[in-house]
Amino acid sequence: MLSIRANSKLCSPRQASQLGRVVSPLIQTPIHGHSAGWRIASIYQTQHSQPRSFSTSSVRPLRDFFPSKETELIRRTPPAWPHHGYTEQEMLEVQPAHREPKTIGDWVAWKLVRLCRWGMDLATGLESDQQVDMKHPTTATKTSKPLTEGQWLVRFIFLESIAGVPGMVAGMLRHLRSLRRLKRDNGWIETLLEESYNERMHLLTFMKMCEPGPFMKFMILGAQGVFFNAMFFSYLISPRICHRFVGYLEEEAVHTYTRCIREIDEGKLPKWTDEGFLVPEMAVTYWHMSEGKRTMRDLVLYIRADEAVHRGVNHTLGNLNQKEDPNPFVSDYKTGHEGQKPNAALKSTGYERDEVIGH
Amino acid sequence: MLSIRANSKLCSPRQASQLGRVVSPLIQTPIHGHSAGWRIASIYQTQHSQPRSFSTSSVRPLRDFFPSKETELIRRTPPAWPHHGYTEQEMLEVQPAHREPKTIGDWVAWKLVRLCRWGMDLATGLESDQQVDMKHPTTATKTSKPLTEGQWLVRFIFLESIAGVPGMVAGMLRHLRSLRRLKRDNGWIETLLEESYNERMHLLTFMKMCEPGPFMKFMILGAQGVFFNAMFFSYLISPRICHRFVGYLEEEAVHTYTRCIREIDEGKLPKWTDEGFLVPEMAVTYWHMSEGKRTMRDLVLYIRADEAVHRGVNHTLGNLNQKEDPNPFVSDYKTGHEGQKPNAALKSTGYERDEVIGH
Ligand SMILES: [Fe+2]
Ligand SMILES: [Fe+2]
Ligand SMILES: [Fe+2]
Ligand SMILES: [Fe+2]
Repeated sequence: MLSIRANSKLCSPRQASQLGRVVSPLIQTPIHGHSAGWRIASIYQTQHSQPRSFSTSSVRPLRDFFPSKETELIRRTPPAWPHHGYTEQEMLEVQPAHREPKTIGDWVAWKLVRLCRWGMDLATGLESDQQVDMKHPTTATKTSKPLTEGQWLVRFIFLESIAGVPGMVAGMLRHLRSLRRLKRDNGWIETLLEESYNERMHLLTFMKMCEPGPFMKFMILGAQGVFFNAMFFSYLISPRICHRFVGYLEEEAVHTYTRCIREIDEGKLPKWTDEGFLVPEMAVTYWHMSEGKRTMRDLVLYIRADEAVHRGVNHTLGNLNQKEDPNPFVSDYKTGHEGQKPNAALKSTGYERDEVIGH
Repeated sequence: MLSIRANSKLCSPRQASQLGRVVSPLIQTPIHGHSAGWRIASIYQTQHSQPRSFSTSSVRPLRDFFPSKETELIRRTPPAWPHHGYTEQEMLEVQPAHREPKTIGDWVAWKLVRLCRWGMDLATGLESDQQVDMKHPTTATKTSKPLTEGQWLVRFIFLESIAGVPGMVAGMLRHLRSLRRLKRDNGWIETLLEESYNERMHLLTFMKMCEPGPFMKFMILGAQGVFFNAMFFSYLISPRICHRFVGYLEEEAVHTYTRCIREIDEGKLPKWTDEGFLVPEMAVTYWHMSEGKRTMRDLVLYIRADEAVHRGVNHTLGNLNQKEDPNPFVSDYKTGHEGQKPNAALKSTGYERDEVIGH
């Protein structure tokens, strides 16, 4: 059976070289090259370094396959939607959680997400002792065997390449609807588009650490084709179920990143706790990561908080009247009700309609 | 032959009532109702008013068919992309202009736009003496017979409902491409999405003045269906020609609004120069229109400047390498080249690649 299992062994996270550890990544020159399997981007690794990773490809010269774009005249292009940032407290408080399905639509959305998860675990060759307690699949994070850094990156890249689709589809369809129905949108579009942008930044960040091989790239193409079309038609039929579906998908994402943090804390992902490991410059810029707080753990904390926001937002949107209700996350509240302005990161199961719109 | 010619007689711009002229629109209550043909929104017109317009529907009670959304808790939802504003100078300097087609792709794009224009004039029943000098179709603005306010609104609403499509399609396709190709976008998406948002604001603003009848609404649905699909597939095949096409479309838009301003200045659109005419609150908020500068002429000046920006942006994007070049309009320039940062409003035919990217 075709499986991307084999590739996961080949994908090894980028590491700062032994020699280059203290050198600024801005000074070193990217080195180009690739192997037949996974390719590793390492603008930090010099040709003189002795890579310690056991990846088959890390012994070859490495390249940064999408260096930050510079032309004769242009220095850089800053992020389109600047990140609003989190306090450390907010990031640490994020917890895996599960909203109990209440309607048939909820149930359909939840089962679909579980089906996707099952397919994903199968395709990426997860062993049974690498899986969590199946009775509490989105809240249990303990397993008998951790994933490897390479396995984590396979998951992250595949999932993030899918995660950027629903926000864009929903935003586009609401935009077109507003145009052809000659009706206001009431603020939903911007939040949905920003979500899809944020997911794309997650993807590009992981891409700076590891490049998938041809087979994985092919899987990504296929998955987008299927998921884009499914989302397009489903959103036309029931936007409410689609938001619930994304809410559940984000529960899985929070779960995945929480488990990853646990394994980092337990010392099971040595390549990411190695002192020499540096997060990509792109991530530092986008999340405004402060000096001395730029480990892989810090990065995953940011990303997990983003997923928690998407979870809260989509579970809330799934509770609203899709055609009439304004988007509570970008609206101004009336005098005396300012405190009711929702904070998606804090509300893992979403706000009920009464809480944010009123009766 | 089916034509929306008849409707154009029925669409009459909203007017401040004789009685209500000095009353704040925020105090008056919207009045609901509609006629069989065009409906007119008038939150300013009270039941006591004597409408002076000769529209068949203006004698009936009027309604604001999408009042600004307020719920028990929510006061308002501010615009997603705040408008960056223009100086009066910038707005007045906008001129109709035409970029000479240089490549076969340019020529195809230009002829397609002319075909659309011809179809539009036919469908809206423009008489031959209402058309401009056909030898200089995008720069000549003199005609022997002006359009009526109703005819203008028909054109504006139909055109703006289409104008919001290409930016969204292009932004979405570039987003999906970035996800599936695992490549950066370099800043194009945000400008394209913002353009589509800006066009939607144009549409909603005109919708506050006049509501199309069922036939026109049907035309809008059909046009979106055709145009969305055409744009979707064309952009996959040749994004460059698509940007050129939009550049030419925006030439037409600048032309249309310039001609409208001329007719306002020549006193041929009395309903819009009536002292009692007030632009919609939504427009005041979005463009930050200052007190005493809120006539229809002021509004059209803002909208025309927006179109000039889209014209310059799309003609420029049509000159770039679609896959590699960063978006010059949102990029930071290198020291010594800061002055080369482009200003789309000023460059009617777009910047050549050399000017903004370098060699
Ligand atoms: Fe994500
Ligand atoms: Fe997510
Ligand atoms: Fe427009
Ligand atoms: Fe336009």
